[in-house]
Amino acid sequence: MKNNMKISSAVIKRLPRYRRYLMELQKKNVDRISSNELSSLIGYTASQIRQDLNNFGGFGQQGYGYNINSLYKEISAILGLDQEYGMVIVGTGNLGQAIANYTHYYKSGFKVCAMFDVNPKLIGLRINDIEVLDYEDLDEYLKNNQTDIGIVCTNMSSAQEVVDKLCNGGVEGIWNFAPTDLIVKDGVALEDVHLSDSLHSLAYYINRNRQNQD
Amino acid sequence: MKNNMKISSAVIKRLPRYRRYLMELQKKNVDRISSNELSSLIGYTASQIRQDLNNFGGFGQQGYGYNINSLYKEISAILGLDQEYGMVIVGTGNLGQAIANYTHYYKSGFKVCAMFDVNPKLIGLRINDIEVLDYEDLDEYLKNNQTDIGIVCTNMSSAQEVVDKLCNGGVEGIWNFAPTDLIVKDGVALEDVHLSDSLHSLAYYINRNRQNQD
Repeated sequence: MKNNMKISSAVIKRLPRYRRYLMELQKKNVDRISSNELSSLIGYTASQIRQDLNNFGGFGQQGYGYNINSLYKEISAILGLDQEYGMVIVGTGNLGQAIANYTHYYKSGFKVCAMFDVNPKLIGLRINDIEVLDYEDLDEYLKNNQTDIGIVCTNMSSAQEVVDKLCNGGVEGIWNFAPTDLIVKDGVALEDVHLSDSLHSLAYYINRNRQNQD
Repeated sequence: MKNNMKISSAVIKRLPRYRRYLMELQKKNVDRISSNELSSLIGYTASQIRQDLNNFGGFGQQGYGYNINSLYKEISAILGLDQEYGMVIVGTGNLGQAIANYTHYYKSGFKVCAMFDVNPKLIGLRINDIEVLDYEDLDEYLKNNQTDIGIVCTNMSSAQEVVDKLCNGGVEGIWNFAPTDLIVKDGVALEDVHLSDSLHSLAYYINRNRQNQD
């Protein structure tokens, strides 16, 4: 992949999904796949798939299709999944603990190195062998431990303050679960998981189906 | 809104976000807003905003802008948020409990009516006053209690079986947190929250920023 190559954010959103399906195919020892076959699996049109993968030189060969292993490796490299990321979680209620378990379970290059909370009942607990530290010590921790990603699992009202601390402490990315839109420092990446937005989309489709039945 | 009107899925994905910002503006007692002002808040271009809102007749008036209250109501109605939804959660580990707390906290029209698990240690627990029931009783529960949405917080390998039960039991929508792609019955809506996809997008942007600094 060329350095600094820009891929549209719509394609970037789709790449992890391609990667997941390619991983499943690898597990089934499939070597290659055509854009048509990939289309029937993933649900994007074959032409969309060819266009997406052409973006970074993932060219299928006529009559052969895509080589699954090399496409998987290429997509993983584009997504930066050939590297390791140190992470901290701020807010260790149910959601924070669920995220810690989730990333632990996946054993990928994403490693939770510390968790922080303000609640004295949670401070000192160990979750997947990671100690919950006092939120007051976050600045100090970040000064002494290079951290790539800060995960925000606090409530809405604390989230911006937490993000400011994380950005000042040098993280390069924020993974935000607080139901609010946050401002990050220039050069820091931000990815939101807005659960309510997702639930509201679901409500829309339920109602559209109801109306179609009328 | 006209019955059966189709709005593209890209617009549907953006509507909840418009709605969140309009809600914030209502709280600040703002009456109206231009597409340019909305653009600087939300981050979409003004022309994108006008195009999106024109889709369902949310026409701003030249020199006046959009009426915030009526636009908020219109978007809420399109999303089906003027109705109530009964929900069950299957899988009540940390993530299931986090989702139960989350929807409880929001006190919107989405109500968790029951939770299910296979783990004897969890069965019988009460979370936000909702009892965790035995997964074996899910079929029976769905027969006797009309349920709109099934929330899947199980692991990957159980998820499809759970979805089949939920679909057979008559739910109209599945909100899936299991890291896998699921097949639903015709006419059942499906919304996935694939956390790993989101984390992988974040990794991409971190790496792009790193390369830009080189």
